[in-house]
Parts: sequence; structure tokens; C-alpha cells
Amino acid sequence: MTSLLIKEKNRQACELLKQLDFDVWIIWVRETKQMADPVLSLVLDRDVVWQSALIYTKTGRRIAIVGNFDADGLKPLGVFDEIIPYTQGIRDILRNKLDSIKPKTIGLNFSRDDVAADGLTFGMYKLLTEYLEGTPYVKRFVSAEPLLIKLRGQKTSQEIRRIQKAVSITEQIYKEARKYLQVGQTEQEIQQFFHKRMKEHGVTFAWGSDHNPAVNAGPNKPFAHAGPTENQTKLGHLLHFDFGVRYQGYCSDLQRMFFFGKSQNIPEEVQTAFNTVRDAIQTASQLIKPRVKGYEVDAIARSFIQERGYEEYQHALGHQLGQEAHDGGTLLGPLWERYGSSPKGLVEQGNVFTLELYVTTQNYGQVSLEENIVVTKTGCKFLSTPQRALICIE
Amino acid sequence: MTSLLIKEKNRQACELLKQLDFDVWIIWVRETKQMADPVLSLVLDRDVVWQSALIYTKTGRRIAIVGNFDADGLKPLGVFDEIIPYTQGIRDILRNKLDSIKPKTIGLNFSRDDVAADGLTFGMYKLLTEYLEGTPYVKRFVSAEPLLIKLRGQKTSQEIRRIQKAVSITEQIYKEARKYLQVGQTEQEIQQFFHKRMKEHGVTFAWGSDHNPAVNAGPNKPFAHAGPTENQTKLGHLLHFDFGVRYQGYCSDLQRMFFFGKSQNIPEEVQTAFNTVRDAIQTASQLIKPRVKGYEVDAIARSFIQERGYEEYQHALGHQLGQEAHDGGTLLGPLWERYGSSPKGLVEQGNVFTLELYVTTQNYGQVSLEENIVVTKTGCKFLSTPQRALICIE
Repeated sequence: MTSLLIKEKNRQACELLKQLDFDVWIIWVRETKQMADPVLSLVLDRDVVWQSALIYTKTGRRIAIVGNFDADGLKPLGVFDEIIPYTQGIRDILRNKLDSIKPKTIGLNFSRDDVAADGLTFGMYKLLTEYLEGTPYVKRFVSAEPLLIKLRGQKTSQEIRRIQKAVSITEQIYKEARKYLQVGQTEQEIQQFFHKRMKEHGVTFAWGSDHNPAVNAGPNKPFAHAGPTENQTKLGHLLHFDFGVRYQGYCSDLQRMFFFGKSQNIPEEVQTAFNTVRDAIQTASQLIKPRVKGYEVDAIARSFIQERGYEEYQHALGHQLGQEAHDGGTLLGPLWERYGSSPKGLVEQGNVFTLELYVTTQNYGQVSLEENIVVTKTGCKFLSTPQRALICIE
Repeated sequence: MTSLLIKEKNRQACELLKQLDFDVWIIWVRETKQMADPVLSLVLDRDVVWQSALIYTKTGRRIAIVGNFDADGLKPLGVFDEIIPYTQGIRDILRNKLDSIKPKTIGLNFSRDDVAADGLTFGMYKLLTEYLEGTPYVKRFVSAEPLLIKLRGQKTSQEIRRIQKAVSITEQIYKEARKYLQVGQTEQEIQQFFHKRMKEHGVTFAWGSDHNPAVNAGPNKPFAHAGPTENQTKLGHLLHFDFGVRYQGYCSDLQRMFFFGKSQNIPEEVQTAFNTVRDAIQTASQLIKPRVKGYEVDAIARSFIQERGYEEYQHALGHQLGQEAHDGGTLLGPLWERYGSSPKGLVEQGNVFTLELYVTTQNYGQVSLEENIVVTKTGCKFLSTPQRALICIE
């Protein structure tokens, strides 16, 4: 099953080389157990130890130059047309191989703005430059970012299937939580309940277990990447979760809001805030489709809540979702310095995004929701069942 | 407990800055869940999401400039004197902070030869250069490799305690295997036995579970980073393991050799090979001490087996052991191209090394052992109980 997905992604890589007109793409890595280029887990399901060059060509060939101890491990994958093992050094083999291909452009994995496309370390870049000194190839290095963004962002059918399953399990655990939750529980014990359920469902964490789920009870705590406290759930208070699981290597990421009390007792400012967040997400979802820019989608939701008198949320409306909860590529975010060029990217068919935002109430803290969608040919499809109303725990 | 270790390593970092005369060391990272600088897990036990600068100064100050959502998570660590959160961009805060420190040298995490000291990505390097454009600081970047090698390599008491425990559990599982092993088992089922025992002992994998333990039954398979096959154990054959566990974040890495049959039936060429490997390790252990060079220790063992008529082993005699099974720093290896300068490094007190090598027999495949040692003030101490004789399964 894994190998099916790996083959899908390797085929996709060579197609993208052709489409984007890179002659060659090199994944240049070492000791990937300790420092893994994020693209590796898309095209390989194992580690390499010694300096390794995984070479993809526009003509569809895939060549692995790897240490002799790693070569045998790659063969069963059936992904490489040629596996060349070495013992003492990779330099000469690499130079010869490039001489035989004579590439005019060589894509390398570096990126200013996208961590998922920035797997080449500075030391390895310098080493490659040194190994290829005196060849014409050093001047032909270009960022493989466009290729990496598409390879990661355009989910294959196998990938979407796994994300959908991760989302469904997340929703199932939220459902189970309805029966469990009551007033007087601490954030910490609530988190433990989620962890137990995850184990039963056989899923792992989409991000660090200390703040997954993030659990925020009552109005006194800003939402953040911080762990649960001894804050207790109280009648008349809100309870917020940010929760994501990993199923067969692929992630979900969903926020949900609960209210302790009867639905007729929901304070008006809370209800208004909730409706605003919910509707902002729907509004954005109606406009997202292939070829719109990331920041355009963010702007729809951002202006929606600002027009209703709320301060703008201090993050992006949505990030991609895949092998990581923050999966890189085009971001549905504002044009802020720290997001670099990622909000300027185009939305593409097969992209999986979160749609998430919060508003702040006067007396009840923040109200925040997050849904997961996949971009289709003409629009988008929700992978989650959007939260329509506050879940009341009576 | 973890926080005790984190504090120990953060103190050590500032002491090393002073000792090595770096004004400032910057860990410059983002989305560390997806792409973690290997040094992070030594000084931080959590992730940061937005672009983050962790600044260490020679005067002993530690400053974290991080995204607003990450700031709260860092406070409880008690490691940073100053935590500066930002929302839209880190650039100006970083420039101002450096202006107030006025460092003459700025250590960054890049290294030609040591993956564990090469956590800075090429994209992040370019971004930092862009953010600091027009300042004098760009020209003051130097590799923090010497600092990183010492920080990782000089194990603190907390770290040695954990490695010792990992080694002891590994030996315990080998002991349990003696009772389990018999002729007619496949490598695959034997690996499953080890995995089950690991679970019971509450430890995880020091490297990928597919080849941990590596299990090699009989003479027909070269040792490699490949998984177990359906090869079966047979009377009169050898069985080889390479097995390492992770206990509280720290690793063991031990190879052991078993023989199926009575000890009086061990073929002479096997016994000679075993004794040679065992004695080569002992000989090297008697010469290792602070201030010898890595390649000098390797050369002792390498010439020991060559003098006895065996071909030299195709790897290094020993690597450091810590949070990773291959923990970077000085390598006890030959001066081969692919090892770069790492065998030229000095052995230091507190370093934990493997000592491992193999020889090849005519008819019984390879004979390979691996022990774990810690370097003391005047020599070394074994953390494992060295294998003295083939373990016979009758």
C-alpha cells in the first residue's frame, strides 16, 4: 500500500519535471534519519545514511547514487531505474553521471519561504558545490520550489483517501468527547481522554502531543501552541479544541467549539461570534477554486469578519494539509513579511487546505473553528462536516 | 527530568561559547516539527512554528525571538532570559537585537561533514542574509561546528545515565533472545520477537524499525541497512544482529553474534574470525583516550585485522552515540573522502562511541561485533558488557 503511493508520487515527480521544464532534479541528502529533507517521505519510505544523490530526469529516468549499505534497501522499492552503490566517495560517480546527462537546469531543494521545499542544508549545498567544482553544473542550480510545491500540493487519490480517513477519525473522537465532557474537568484530563481515544483508533499525532489537542477552557487563556493547564470547564463557559491526527502518514487538523449549558443560554455575543466565524469559513469556501491566489481567499474571510466589527485574526486563513499538518506550498494567508511569497501562490486542483479563523468576544474569550477541504476542478469539497452550531454540553 | 537535562545543555552551550570565543550563536529555524535542526532537541524540548532566532551570547544570555503563538510555550522551560514574541515579521526585532549585542562573530549551524552540525537550510541561510542586508553581521557568520560538536559530544551526567540505561535494556533483550532462538526461524519472525520485547521494556527504535534489529541468518546475505528476509536459522550457521533502542531520547547500538550448535562444533575459521573481531575492539579500546584523533583509533583496529589476513571493513570503527545512533562529531573512521574531516577530530572526555567491525569468513559469511563505550579522563569505560564468546544455541 505504501509502495503504491510511493510509486504514484515518483511518477508524478517525473511528469512535473517535464511540465516545468527542469532537466534534472537532485535530492542531495545524508543521514536522513537525523536530518530528513521533507520531500523524502513523499518519494521514499526509508532512510539513506551516506551522502546520496537521488536524480530524477525529464526523460523519466530515476537514478540513485547511494552508499553500498543503503543500496540493497532501495531495490525492493522498484522506483529507481538505476541504483549505483559506492564505498569510499560519491564525487566521481556523481560527476560522471551528470556528464552523461548534461543537464541545463538542475533543481535543488531550497526555498526562501516554504519549509517543505527547503530540505537542502547549507553544508550540503557547499559540499555539492565543492564536488562539482570546475564543472558547468554549479551555475545551473535553481530552486526546485515550483516542482516541490506541486509534488506535495497536488494530492494523488491515495493521499486524499488517507487524509479523508484521518479527518473522519478526528470527527469520531470529537463525537465521543461529547459524551465524556462535563463541567469541572481540567484541560489536562480532557487532553488525556483524547490521547486514549487516539490509541484506540490506532492513530498518532499530527503535531506535538503536548499541545495536541490544544484545549482551552474559559475566557482567560489566549489560544497558542501551548499545552493544557489546570483550568477547569465551567457552566456558561466555552471550550475550544485544536486537534489533528495522523493516519498512515497523513494528517487532519480540526478546531471545534463547545459550550457548557443549554443552547438557549448561549450569550448573544458568543452566538454572534460563532456565526461570524462559521459563515466566514463558508464564504471563503465558496470562492476557493483552482487558479485563485492564496491571499485572495484569505482576504475574503478577513474582510468578512472585519466588516462585522471584529479585529482580524493573527494568522493565515488556511494552510495545506498532508504528511504534515503544516504541509507547505501555497498559503491562504495575508501578504505579511513572515509569510514571504507563499500567499502569492496559486490554488491548484488536489490541494488540501484548512480553513480556520477566530474572533475575540468581550467576555468569553476567543471563538475559533477550523475545517478541512480539498480543491476540485471547479471549487472545493469539504473533507470535514463543518460545525454548524456550538456543541452544547448540558 | 527532561527539563533538568535541557537546563544542563543550555548552560553548557554558553560555557562553550566562552571557551571557543564565539560572541553569539544563533539557532535560526522555522516549522521545526517538519524540518528540525538536529541541535534543537539538545536545547529545547518543543517545536517552534514561525521563523525563530534562538540567540546565545558569550556573556551567558539566552534570547528567543519567536512567533507570538510560540512564546507562551517557551516560558515554562526557564531557559531563556528574554522571550520576544512577534506577529508580522521577525526582521526588525532581530536587527535591533543584534545591534544591541554588536557581535564580532556569529556562529550558524552549517557543516560540510557533520550532519548533526548542519541544521541550517540553504533557504534559511539566504533569508537571514536578506534580513541582515546592509548590516555588518552577514560578513561575521562562521560555522558553529566546533561548538556543536562539543555540545553534542561532551555528554552530561544526565545524558550518560540515559545511554547506559538504553544499553542495559538492549543487553537484557539479547539475553531474552537466547531462550527464544532456535533453528528454523526466519529473520522476519526473529525481528518481531525483538519488537515485542522492546514494547514490553517501554523503549522505541534507535533507527528505522524495518532494519532494527538487522537480522542476518547464515552466510548468504551481506550485512546492510536492509530488512530481514525469509532466510532461516540453520544448525551450524551464524546469526548476526545489529540492534539499538532509544530510552528517554538516548540510543544504544550493539551487534551480537550467535551460533547454532554446540560450542565444540564451532568451525575453526568462525572461531578465529570471532576472536579477531573481539580482540580488535579490545585493542582499540585500550588506546582510546582524550586528545587522540579519530582516525588513529580506527587505524589500530583496521591494521589489527589486516595483519591477521582479513580484508579491511568497509565502514568506520566507531561513531558517536547519543540522541541519534549516528550522533555526529568526531568519527573513529579512516581518512576516506566521504567521511570528510570528521575522522580528524579529537576524542574528548564524555564522548560516547560505538566500537564495531566485521571480518569475512570463507564459508560462514561475516562475523561482526559492536560495543558501546564512554571516554573517561584517561581512557574509556565500556557501557556494554563486551561479547567474549559466540553465544551458542544448542
